[in-house]
Amino acid sequence: MTPELECLFSFLRFPSISTDSKHTGDVRACADWLVAKLSEMGLSTQLHETARHPVVVARNEHISSRRTVLIYGHYDVQPVDPLNLWSSDPFQPEIRDGRIWARGATDNKGQMLAHVLGVEKTLRESGELPVNLIFLFEGEEEIGSPNLATFLQSHREELKCDVIAISDTGMVASGVPTLGYGLRGITCCEVILRGPKGDLHSGLFGGAVANPAAAMARLVASLHTLDGSVAVSGFYDNVRPLEKWEREMWAKVPGVSDADFLTVTGSQSTFGEPGYSSAERTWARPTAEVNGIGGGYQGEGSKTVLPAESFVKLSFRLVPDQSPEDIMKKVKAHLEAHCPCGVTMEFIPGHDGKPYVADPHSQFGIAAQAALRSSFNSEPVLIREGGSIPIVQTFRDILGVDTLLLGLALSDAQIHAPNENFPIENFEAGIRLNQALLKEIAKH
Amino acid sequence: MTPELECLFSFLRFPSISTDSKHTGDVRACADWLVAKLSEMGLSTQLHETARHPVVVARNEHISSRRTVLIYGHYDVQPVDPLNLWSSDPFQPEIRDGRIWARGATDNKGQMLAHVLGVEKTLRESGELPVNLIFLFEGEEEIGSPNLATFLQSHREELKCDVIAISDTGMVASGVPTLGYGLRGITCCEVILRGPKGDLHSGLFGGAVANPAAAMARLVASLHTLDGSVAVSGFYDNVRPLEKWEREMWAKVPGVSDADFLTVTGSQSTFGEPGYSSAERTWARPTAEVNGIGGGYQGEGSKTVLPAESFVKLSFRLVPDQSPEDIMKKVKAHLEAHCPCGVTMEFIPGHDGKPYVADPHSQFGIAAQAALRSSFNSEPVLIREGGSIPIVQTFRDILGVDTLLLGLALSDAQIHAPNENFPIENFEAGIRLNQALLKEIAKH
Repeated sequence: MTPELECLFSFLRFPSISTDSKHTGDVRACADWLVAKLSEMGLSTQLHETARHPVVVARNEHISSRRTVLIYGHYDVQPVDPLNLWSSDPFQPEIRDGRIWARGATDNKGQMLAHVLGVEKTLRESGELPVNLIFLFEGEEEIGSPNLATFLQSHREELKCDVIAISDTGMVASGVPTLGYGLRGITCCEVILRGPKGDLHSGLFGGAVANPAAAMARLVASLHTLDGSVAVSGFYDNVRPLEKWEREMWAKVPGVSDADFLTVTGSQSTFGEPGYSSAERTWARPTAEVNGIGGGYQGEGSKTVLPAESFVKLSFRLVPDQSPEDIMKKVKAHLEAHCPCGVTMEFIPGHDGKPYVADPHSQFGIAAQAALRSSFNSEPVLIREGGSIPIVQTFRDILGVDTLLLGLALSDAQIHAPNENFPIENFEAGIRLNQALLKEIAKH
Repeated sequence: MTPELECLFSFLRFPSISTDSKHTGDVRACADWLVAKLSEMGLSTQLHETARHPVVVARNEHISSRRTVLIYGHYDVQPVDPLNLWSSDPFQPEIRDGRIWARGATDNKGQMLAHVLGVEKTLRESGELPVNLIFLFEGEEEIGSPNLATFLQSHREELKCDVIAISDTGMVASGVPTLGYGLRGITCCEVILRGPKGDLHSGLFGGAVANPAAAMARLVASLHTLDGSVAVSGFYDNVRPLEKWEREMWAKVPGVSDADFLTVTGSQSTFGEPGYSSAERTWARPTAEVNGIGGGYQGEGSKTVLPAESFVKLSFRLVPDQSPEDIMKKVKAHLEAHCPCGVTMEFIPGHDGKPYVADPHSQFGIAAQAALRSSFNSEPVLIREGGSIPIVQTFRDILGVDTLLLGLALSDAQIHAPNENFPIENFEAGIRLNQALLKEIAKH
């Protein structure tokens, strides 16, 4: 086993499950290990306390004429339940079939440590880095980074940088270097419809008063047109159209064809806004999704009840330049206008996050592409992602810079699930990627 | 306390909960008490074993020139949970505010025993009854009468009668004698829509494949027109129109105005098929009701999931001359025709029961009205009921006769709920009603 893999195995052995207070000591021990590792590499390293798990910051000696790069990662991991579905102990890493199997192997210890080891290698080979480097590693990503924005605010001067790099997203396919330059935003709400004061006998009262479950079906159905577009008035007003080059490139990106979407999801057919491919629909078009609906009898068999109320949990994925506030205002107006007779509506706003897009052809985008190309020896693809990573927009809001999303995760990495794994080749490519990235950024 | 009330209290003290196997002995003890009571009155009484709880049949000496009346009732009761909501022990009857408080007080021991005590009184006063009488009391009504149809089939010769009377329905208001002559039928089904093979991340996949919860909303919304009619093709084809006298009478029935429906249900407005009152909608018009709907995340807060499947539990209340089979065929065709793209549908048929209507102006209907009039000293109202009592149609199918529904239950009787109660005056009116009924039937 290489010293790099040995180092990763040590890192993976910490059960740094941030959500579980029984593991608070393990999260702390993992942070301490990280501090020791980074200090040993000659970086000036500090452990910062937060309200819960510490932030670790490390930096080389900064020289004002050089570019400053902030590399973000997280050393906390998801829980491991159900443990019985794991083929090996989640905290005793193993190598099988060219992959490292352990909780955190991909998300995010493997991807994050590749950057650390890339820096170590450059320092060993060259004695110094070509850029000013800031490593920012948190221990609370898996619980929603509750203390990171506060930390960024209070340390914004010392975290000042030209660009941020994160390896915590996906590659479209094995061996295909992938630069992410956009993320969808989100806004959520819950709606409750109420009719009678309690559940009614559907025989004695059915037909005479509105049924809140039937009313909910009508209300939810009003959100889409028959062909799958969102029917909320003004919903698409601020949607930035896809660029020609994006559509052309995405059509050629491996692993994201309509057929690939069907294979991955197991759906019988694709369905969505007309005129767009599946990749376009998920990466660059907004949606209205029902995340949960319920009302009335939920058990086995039948119960002839006319329910007193029903609920729906909705989320809207947003794209540039939609604003969560504007969309939620329009959604609320739509729901109020379409609320069926005979029921009253309660509207409960939920969390939100702005959409994000950066120019992948900016100087740092070009640097990232060059680094991906050389470290994977293959032409990189440029994609957006359908999900939302709020921290990226928080970085832009507080530090004023863009983020390069240099994902190394494969779709079968089993992140957040049993048997999480990370290919050794991706780990090694990540080390090369870090070395190339710092070199390329230094040039731009 | 009168001897009649003392007798009722003895009957109510048996915790004859048919669904609970811990109470099997109590159900049996209650049946034995009933056999003793009826035998003591001079009736020829038999306890018939079934697969679970016994049927008790009692009869006077039949004379071929007289009318034969079968009076049905049930001596089993509903469970009593939640016990802490009862103001007094459900099986230690108490009198408060002119009412008897106990499980079974209204449903059905109080109403049933009024018939027994009416017969006892007539026998004591006249030495004989004016009709051939059959008492048929079962101990399984609250679990759906699983063995009664078989019993009726195998005893159809000895149960031959001219008419059946049941006191197990409601009065429209206190003091208003009520003859029920119709019941709605029912047919039920469950529909499951399936999309992706598992729940998906709504960010990564939302917009590209059909969402089974959104699809379900569209499918369910298709069942009704905007104004509240059922939109299934051919649904109303066989609906027998309301008679002019029914609409005129029902408009005057106390306690069932639109305003009364709002008070009882707590709904903010009535809603249903245009052109009908609430009473007409529930008693004589068919419906499509959502009894339960579900899919995706059901917990607190939000979870951005695109659910793999969704379900809906539907029931359709039917009126003469709709047939459950015909309606379910039409509903299934409608659902198949309206199933949204991108999901597959599983259709699960459920239980059903035919609608029922008899002529309240038949000779026995007129006899029942006369008995109600004299025992309550008030003009009876003629109504149908919105619910379904399958046993009534089973009687017609197997014994070939109609049933008079002579309800004594008030809407605040709390049947199936804590603090069940029965007004003493209704109990006493029920005794008079039985005496008058047998006398009136003998005349017709």
